Amino acid sequence: MTAVYLAMICGGIAVLYGIVTSGQVLRQSPGDARMQDIAGAIQEGAKAYLGRQYTTIAVVGLVVAVVLAVTLGWLSTLGFAIGAVLSGVAGYVGMTISVRANVRTAEAARTSLQAGLTTAFRSGAVTGMLVAGLGLLAIAVFFWYLVGPAGHAPNDRLIVEALTALAFGASLISIFARLGGGIFTKAADVGADLVGKVEAGIPEDDPRNPAVIADNVGDNVGDCAGMAADLFETYVVTLGVTMISIALLVRADAGELLRLMSLPLIVGGVCILTSIIGTYMVRLGRSGSIMGALYKGFWTSALLAVPAIFAAAHYTLGDLNAVIGNAGFLDAVSDDLTQGGAAAGSGFTGMDLVWCMVIGLGVTGLIVWITEYYTGTAYRPVRSIARASETGHGTNVIQGLAISLEATALPTLVIVVAVIATYQLAGVIGIAFAATAMLALAGMVVALDAYGPVTDNAGGIAEMAALPDEVRQRTDALDAVGNTTKAVTKGYAIGSAGLAALVLFGAYTTDLSTYFPEVEVDFSLSNPYVIVGLLLGALLPYLFGAFGMTAVGRAAGAVVEEVRGQFRDDPGIMQGTSRPRYGRTVDLVTRAAIREMIVPSLLPVLSPIAVYAIVRLVAGQANGFAALGAMLLGVIVSGLFVALSMTSGGGAWDNAKKYIEDGHHGGKGSEAHKAAVTGDTVGDPYKDTAGPAVNPMIKITNIVALLLLAVLAARGG
Amino acid sequence: MTAVYLAMICGGIAVLYGIVTSGQVLRQSPGDARMQDIAGAIQEGAKAYLGRQYTTIAVVGLVVAVVLAVTLGWLSTLGFAIGAVLSGVAGYVGMTISVRANVRTAEAARTSLQAGLTTAFRSGAVTGMLVAGLGLLAIAVFFWYLVGPAGHAPNDRLIVEALTALAFGASLISIFARLGGGIFTKAADVGADLVGKVEAGIPEDDPRNPAVIADNVGDNVGDCAGMAADLFETYVVTLGVTMISIALLVRADAGELLRLMSLPLIVGGVCILTSIIGTYMVRLGRSGSIMGALYKGFWTSALLAVPAIFAAAHYTLGDLNAVIGNAGFLDAVSDDLTQGGAAAGSGFTGMDLVWCMVIGLGVTGLIVWITEYYTGTAYRPVRSIARASETGHGTNVIQGLAISLEATALPTLVIVVAVIATYQLAGVIGIAFAATAMLALAGMVVALDAYGPVTDNAGGIAEMAALPDEVRQRTDALDAVGNTTKAVTKGYAIGSAGLAALVLFGAYTTDLSTYFPEVEVDFSLSNPYVIVGLLLGALLPYLFGAFGMTAVGRAAGAVVEEVRGQFRDDPGIMQGTSRPRYGRTVDLVTRAAIREMIVPSLLPVLSPIAVYAIVRLVAGQANGFAALGAMLLGVIVSGLFVALSMTSGGGAWDNAKKYIEDGHHGGKGSEAHKAAVTGDTVGDPYKDTAGPAVNPMIKITNIVALLLLAVLAARGG
Repeated sequence: MTAVYLAMICGGIAVLYGIVTSGQVLRQSPGDARMQDIAGAIQEGAKAYLGRQYTTIAVVGLVVAVVLAVTLGWLSTLGFAIGAVLSGVAGYVGMTISVRANVRTAEAARTSLQAGLTTAFRSGAVTGMLVAGLGLLAIAVFFWYLVGPAGHAPNDRLIVEALTALAFGASLISIFARLGGGIFTKAADVGADLVGKVEAGIPEDDPRNPAVIADNVGDNVGDCAGMAADLFETYVVTLGVTMISIALLVRADAGELLRLMSLPLIVGGVCILTSIIGTYMVRLGRSGSIMGALYKGFWTSALLAVPAIFAAAHYTLGDLNAVIGNAGFLDAVSDDLTQGGAAAGSGFTGMDLVWCMVIGLGVTGLIVWITEYYTGTAYRPVRSIARASETGHGTNVIQGLAISLEATALPTLVIVVAVIATYQLAGVIGIAFAATAMLALAGMVVALDAYGPVTDNAGGIAEMAALPDEVRQRTDALDAVGNTTKAVTKGYAIGSAGLAALVLFGAYTTDLSTYFPEVEVDFSLSNPYVIVGLLLGALLPYLFGAFGMTAVGRAAGAVVEEVRGQFRDDPGIMQGTSRPRYGRTVDLVTRAAIREMIVPSLLPVLSPIAVYAIVRLVAGQANGFAALGAMLLGVIVSGLFVALSMTSGGGAWDNAKKYIEDGHHGGKGSEAHKAAVTGDTVGDPYKDTAGPAVNPMIKITNIVALLLLAVLAARGG
Repeated sequence: MTAVYLAMICGGIAVLYGIVTSGQVLRQSPGDARMQDIAGAIQEGAKAYLGRQYTTIAVVGLVVAVVLAVTLGWLSTLGFAIGAVLSGVAGYVGMTISVRANVRTAEAARTSLQAGLTTAFRSGAVTGMLVAGLGLLAIAVFFWYLVGPAGHAPNDRLIVEALTALAFGASLISIFARLGGGIFTKAADVGADLVGKVEAGIPEDDPRNPAVIADNVGDNVGDCAGMAADLFETYVVTLGVTMISIALLVRADAGELLRLMSLPLIVGGVCILTSIIGTYMVRLGRSGSIMGALYKGFWTSALLAVPAIFAAAHYTLGDLNAVIGNAGFLDAVSDDLTQGGAAAGSGFTGMDLVWCMVIGLGVTGLIVWITEYYTGTAYRPVRSIARASETGHGTNVIQGLAISLEATALPTLVIVVAVIATYQLAGVIGIAFAATAMLALAGMVVALDAYGPVTDNAGGIAEMAALPDEVRQRTDALDAVGNTTKAVTKGYAIGSAGLAALVLFGAYTTDLSTYFPEVEVDFSLSNPYVIVGLLLGALLPYLFGAFGMTAVGRAAGAVVEEVRGQFRDDPGIMQGTSRPRYGRTVDLVTRAAIREMIVPSLLPVLSPIAVYAIVRLVAGQANGFAALGAMLLGVIVSGLFVALSMTSGGGAWDNAKKYIEDGHHGGKGSEAHKAAVTGDTVGDPYKDTAGPAVNPMIKITNIVALLLLAVLAARGG
């Protein structure tokens, strides 16, 4: 249990870091009255939106909680509530700090680039550490309660169910937050760009544009709050499913199981410490490279994590060369697998797990590197899109789509190699620990990401408050690398989902054989119901993407109409003599985003249930389970590609525009620039609405399936 | 054997129809000297391109033939050669008639819309009947030779291998033809549009544009020759794999097997007859609806096919209520499947097969209807793209992408329902017969498609030869429905691939257990190598799509440079005083297309071999086979969605532009129209290069895997 306590302490330190660092940020000057006025409007809009979003989600959450209470009992309901509430808190707190850091970053950027970077990154680090800290605390405290005061055995079904419910709570909130926030931010962004930059010919963030505040609000509720909820979910689900799969798969005595189940927690804990150290390394070097400064922080955290993980494993497990459990993996999942590769039939050692975690860290590093290659302005992909912009809007989009398709290849190969290597080392448990190590760095990764919207906002405030040009130049420089860090987080989240989904499927099959030992389910590819499940699962990300893209298009269209109306009704707005009615636009986008997020968010919740019910009706229970299981893998096999292509492609389009704005291919105002703006607009919902929401969608589908099994078992099939 | 003779006679009738109808078309007036001059330039360019394309393919084909001769013997090499040569012939003849029908259609459209429609459709019908007729003759004659003069038993391994090699020949040529032709046509089209419509502000098909002949050549080598080779491949593979799966799976005596294996042939035969009848029903009704006229032809063929198939089955099998074979399906594939649904354990009757084929016809009808919904100007999807064009290039593309994602849903559901229903009726054999019935209508479907490029060319010739405006209006009206019929064929081909891929996988697993009875392969989803295979298979269509899109972008860019150069060097071109050097542009596109088609076409040929070799090295032979098998399904699970979204989305973009050109949302020249042109440009490589080539790519991957098994078995693993 000491390991669990230590993990709780580390989680506490992360929260403490968040409080202290928030204080540092908030003590900085918020600038002059005009700046505070603008920031106030953004704060108000963001608070109002999140308030309504969470109220709406609460209704759905309450219904689900009642269903869980009736079917699985109060412990699962408690888990669900913890996951749901803390996911909401992570998003809300992230938004709260970032709407205050934006104006302070703008003010700090008056002094120097370094000062702006420090303020923005600190604010990002607050969000990052709260996501990781709250995530770790949620699981550690809940697990401590279950095996301590409540006195359950570590592999008790109740614990598995309760941890699953915790993950479900986090996922359910995060899909709404990701999608609602994503629709809000891109509807406002695209709408503002279309009517401002394209139609009225006024620059981005011009205060005469009535949609400009909504655009800035969007950065906070989408890229910050939505992202934080998403990564909170990823963190909780990954660590949770690692523990669940240990409970389900490893055959060992209770003490050994407890130690093994604590390992993900303490690994999360020590990596919080290395991430905190990393945050202090984020400083501009002599080259003045911002990406370089951020990388110093990231690489410090990642490299320190290697010895930290080794020490944590040694502390928790003792002798790292001793074999743990017996046959701790796939022959438990499926007896067919005894001939399945070198791993089967043998146990694994602590050292095997350490290697798996090092591989997980390696995957994170590689995904960062690949994402930078595909979205950075220094490499072929972005430059090829910029070059294609010279021949028009059409070729820009064609090349962007080509890059988005291509960008799926390397991450997939990395994931495939990681799956094979970790499976050879320690079976499904090995894959799970690789995913855990990836997520252990979440504090740092989220910090890099959450820094982006703050600088984006700071630029907007600088523009609207008419700060000197050099301030805007500095915030623009800070913002440009934000595109890459944002893409990194998404690639990282979906990559870890690729690993976690395999583990979730393992949990599903084990649950099946536990709950329904009499039902022989055939998961072989030669069972047509498996194919049916794969196809229906593969359809989900497409349908979900269609909903997301349509929602943004529709809501952006409404913004355009609204702004055109304001310009028409009050010609003083364009002359700069009257103030636009910012609030009305924020309101409009709020209503649109809330309305549009409901149906697609329920899609992954209800589809698994529908597929099981229908196939069961047509072809019996065994095939119902087979189709459902295959659906879980179909959704990851297709979702991985949809998400990777959308997020990388969107980032590349955005930076191709920035590359042209830096003076290449004719620079700002050229025909190439106009084409690049089109590409950027197309990439917006790709990378910030549809693409990133695929990650929580995959998790939800999987977790709903696990809960469905538990419910069916409880009600006797 | 009489059934086989009858099928051969029907195939002969199709070829005869082609010869007679070609004569009718060629006897029509080819117009005035100016028109003949233009048509001559197109003919010359198309012949030159196809000549070089087939020469290049011949080199690859020769290498493959030598490999086959060494590894599998002369019979397989003969099969490969027949498939390859006839696939080339189908494309070549289709191109030859269509480059002569274009000018005659323009001339006929002077008289009336009906005259233009008749000429264009007759030319399409020639290509359609030759594709179906040659396809049927190829398999029927080869099969007759094998079981007749060569004296093999119908389920002899040699027959299975030889039919597989025949399918491979057809597929290999068709992927090159589809991709090379697709790159040619879209590079020329996009390049011509960008430099002509967008930059120089001259209309489409303006004779001053040096790329205009290349654009017209492209219609013939891509949309006609490439498409014909593709559908020839689909026809041969579908009928072939149905016969192979009967040979592999059904346990019955030789006479019964022979009758059952002849059934796909005679079904193909009678449906050629109903298709020929259908072609005579294509006439404008009182409403003057062109789509209505084409539909009359299609529905006549499809509805007459129902009694024809019933009669064919009755004639071939005798008593349709008698049980055929014993346990004629999945327990042969996998012993695990005995609990797999209602179908297992029992045999199937002739009537079951008839129902499966009726379901196949139903799938074809539904896909036609769904495709029309998503690409027709009368429905929500296209109109939503047109409306989104009002707010700019960006929203047009966003909405187009949303529609392309959404358009995958209904076809997938139709395929899923068809899989379940036909499997319940007659197992894998049932699925195979559904696919066969779909393809039996290929003559008609190809006729509808091949009519499109002829009318497109006719419009170009009318423009360049300065024919009266009403001629261009008529050809435009004919061309507009061409967008939908082109999308229909692609949805139909990929839909049938969805069914055929399952059957191919069944053949793969059966082959495995025949060739390697001692290797126990675990295809369960809980085997990580299955997941690895699924992921790598799913990657292929993405990578392939990236290659295709990049190739078009790059080649189109080269066209733009070339045309800009011509305008610069000779200002007389724009003034209309000098004639552009059309030939130089055709040459440039030819070289680019040939160069760009090689690498992506080899991707599906080499990937299965690489995946097997690498996984075998890491995790043993059983897992190598498992990963390879899973790859085959991964490529269909992902390819289905990639292909459906690209082809429907592209068609919708194109028709949204046409809808605006018809006077909606501001009409030609409006800002909305410019945005719609961008969408159309983006959709071009989507729907005509990357999307349709996914279909032969899926087949190749599957067939290469089957051949790999045969080769490994021959060399002792």
